[in-house]
Amino acid sequence: MNDADDLPLSPVSEPGEVGLVAPSDFVSKEPFVCDSGQVLPGYTLRYETYGRLNAARDNAILICHALSGDHHCAGIHSLSDRKPGWWNNLIGPGKPVDTHRYFVLCANVIGGCQGSSGPASINPATGRAYGIAFPGVTIRDMVRSQYRWLQSLGVTALHAVIGGSMGGMQALQWAIEYPGFVRRVVAMATTARESAQGIAFNEVGRQAILQDPGWNGGDYPRQGGPRVGLAIARMMAHITYLSDAGLDRKFGRRRRAVTTPAANATAEPAASDATGASAVEGAGTAPGFASFEFEIERYLRHQGQSFINRFDANSYLYITRAIDSFDLAGEGSLEQAFAPVQAESLIVGFTSDWLFPPEQNRDIALALLRAGKRSSYAELNTDLGHDSFLLESPQLYDLVRGFLR
Amino acid sequence: MNDADDLPLSPVSEPGEVGLVAPSDFVSKEPFVCDSGQVLPGYTLRYETYGRLNAARDNAILICHALSGDHHCAGIHSLSDRKPGWWNNLIGPGKPVDTHRYFVLCANVIGGCQGSSGPASINPATGRAYGIAFPGVTIRDMVRSQYRWLQSLGVTALHAVIGGSMGGMQALQWAIEYPGFVRRVVAMATTARESAQGIAFNEVGRQAILQDPGWNGGDYPRQGGPRVGLAIARMMAHITYLSDAGLDRKFGRRRRAVTTPAANATAEPAASDATGASAVEGAGTAPGFASFEFEIERYLRHQGQSFINRFDANSYLYITRAIDSFDLAGEGSLEQAFAPVQAESLIVGFTSDWLFPPEQNRDIALALLRAGKRSSYAELNTDLGHDSFLLESPQLYDLVRGFLR
Repeated sequence: MNDADDLPLSPVSEPGEVGLVAPSDFVSKEPFVCDSGQVLPGYTLRYETYGRLNAARDNAILICHALSGDHHCAGIHSLSDRKPGWWNNLIGPGKPVDTHRYFVLCANVIGGCQGSSGPASINPATGRAYGIAFPGVTIRDMVRSQYRWLQSLGVTALHAVIGGSMGGMQALQWAIEYPGFVRRVVAMATTARESAQGIAFNEVGRQAILQDPGWNGGDYPRQGGPRVGLAIARMMAHITYLSDAGLDRKFGRRRRAVTTPAANATAEPAASDATGASAVEGAGTAPGFASFEFEIERYLRHQGQSFINRFDANSYLYITRAIDSFDLAGEGSLEQAFAPVQAESLIVGFTSDWLFPPEQNRDIALALLRAGKRSSYAELNTDLGHDSFLLESPQLYDLVRGFLR
Repeated sequence: MNDADDLPLSPVSEPGEVGLVAPSDFVSKEPFVCDSGQVLPGYTLRYETYGRLNAARDNAILICHALSGDHHCAGIHSLSDRKPGWWNNLIGPGKPVDTHRYFVLCANVIGGCQGSSGPASINPATGRAYGIAFPGVTIRDMVRSQYRWLQSLGVTALHAVIGGSMGGMQALQWAIEYPGFVRRVVAMATTARESAQGIAFNEVGRQAILQDPGWNGGDYPRQGGPRVGLAIARMMAHITYLSDAGLDRKFGRRRRAVTTPAANATAEPAASDATGASAVEGAGTAPGFASFEFEIERYLRHQGQSFINRFDANSYLYITRAIDSFDLAGEGSLEQAFAPVQAESLIVGFTSDWLFPPEQNRDIALALLRAGKRSSYAELNTDLGHDSFLLESPQLYDLVRGFLR
């Protein structure tokens, strides 16, 4: 059945690597009407592909990324890269998403900041960055903007759409929006509607950004802006991607004395541009509340710090808002929403994921079944929280490999 | 057995109110050596009492408050008070903590900001607020500073110590520190050691404060300071006090359009002193990411806003640090830590509490039992999260009433 069955196969026991890859840009010069009614005069999507489109043009697998992800999901950009793409463990020759068999694609979402059109892009009407003049975007806007791109590449059908978290939202939206185009959906660690708690966490992150003087109404220089607010937002969000048990196993209560003044506020050298903390330097002794620090604290600060060097604060506002807005059922039922779906689907929940808990994933599969669709639900036991979908998991690999065949 | 058995009883079906109360100050002029080794030349504890100490001086029940609580746990301060003390539903004539029977006491913790000595208090050495020169405090420091106060009142034994969350930590510490003094312990929604996840959330809140330019090394005017950072810290913490299910039930995804520019950043009138957001005003339209707002967002911003009007940011740093430091077992076992305990105990966990989950509460009771102590564990079904211990609960009332008799 699989059109790529005649392609060479790597031995499963020794999966290879995608290797060196380079991104490309899809540029649409046609206007794009967002769900909000606002119109972009055109847009760019930065993307990567791995493997080759077959003659029938139907062996394509679309990967959809999560909030802080991008188009670079496998391979390396240069031989000196320390880290490969974010889903490199899943994608490659002989891996579950087998680039010998499939033509794998991934694009940075619209509203993003890694090369696709977003608030940091130049507004042709002003010659300056859009900032908050960029239209609000939805998960459906992400999907529709990618459809135009796939058409331009000559893809006639998607063998599968695969995503976790916000990527899973896109995968479900794909199956509803383009039913004849999508044959399989793998959605993991996701939800059919963002919960009040999810919105609440996103809102705290947004307020940290909006209330940072550096935000300046969304008008800030590319390397500047609300760096403190964005770091705070990321630190908090990062906790929601992990789990109590996982953090206890990894960090526990390991701590060490702080000898430099207020070192716990300025431990990361790159944080030196952060305001506020400098006022403590030179006080001579660590303040009473900060004579030691826990390893988990250092780790979190590092997460916040590295995020602000790669992410745009306005994009963070826009993309979290797209997530908040996501509600497939709307005023109706989820079964009704899934009525057009033709794809078969694999929905995967992770026991320790408390951001998009197993029940929310199971509810998706149940609604698909009630709507008369082919759907399976798998629940994997992990203590790694929401991020489980990104991590080494032979169980997950077997599920995905089997489902894609 | 109960020394207060001869006191008049209100009918249980019609519990009365404590009524008008006024706080008092205990002032110790003796030096107080903190666990850190740092010495306070003296300290003040602001407290309230309800009911009367009996002739045997052993009908006292000490209430210990949580992170954002204070000494005002029952009654009202004036007839125009809209809200009574924070545990008024539990404490009063004929209520589970029956002020006809018991002499109920509660003090603001050391390091706090509601009248007890803390970073906002005047440092006699400088004539200015301590700020970060205040010694770091621990849960044990809170307990030891309160012991001196109880002695000054002539209390010879505690019929019970009762607390939830950080109050539960103090209650457990009381039983270890003063075994002959404490007859009963009720600890709810608490833990014997702060987990890595708990430390992580506290650290995000602290960083939001420390990185706010208004923090200024801890040196700020009483009504000023890092108001934005403190509001962000509180908004985030508030989510951890609730639950996914509870928030969905209370707020769901209810939303409304935003018509005023960037209203979602400045919805609370009192937030007008917040920096950053003002830059959006006058932009003419709501930005693309903010054309509507969810009710949960408005609610959270209100929580942040009202907190900064009643809490000191430096105290927030100190008290969260005391919580992080809390680890009864330390390098040993929890059974060993509980070895001195003479009190019998009731430990209560709440199913939807994910900040101090049921298992962490059950582990306390199990360790007490393994150490040969009398201890009971009760787990109450709620969907209200960590804050369940503060809320109306006939089940909890029955447990507490029965245990205290």
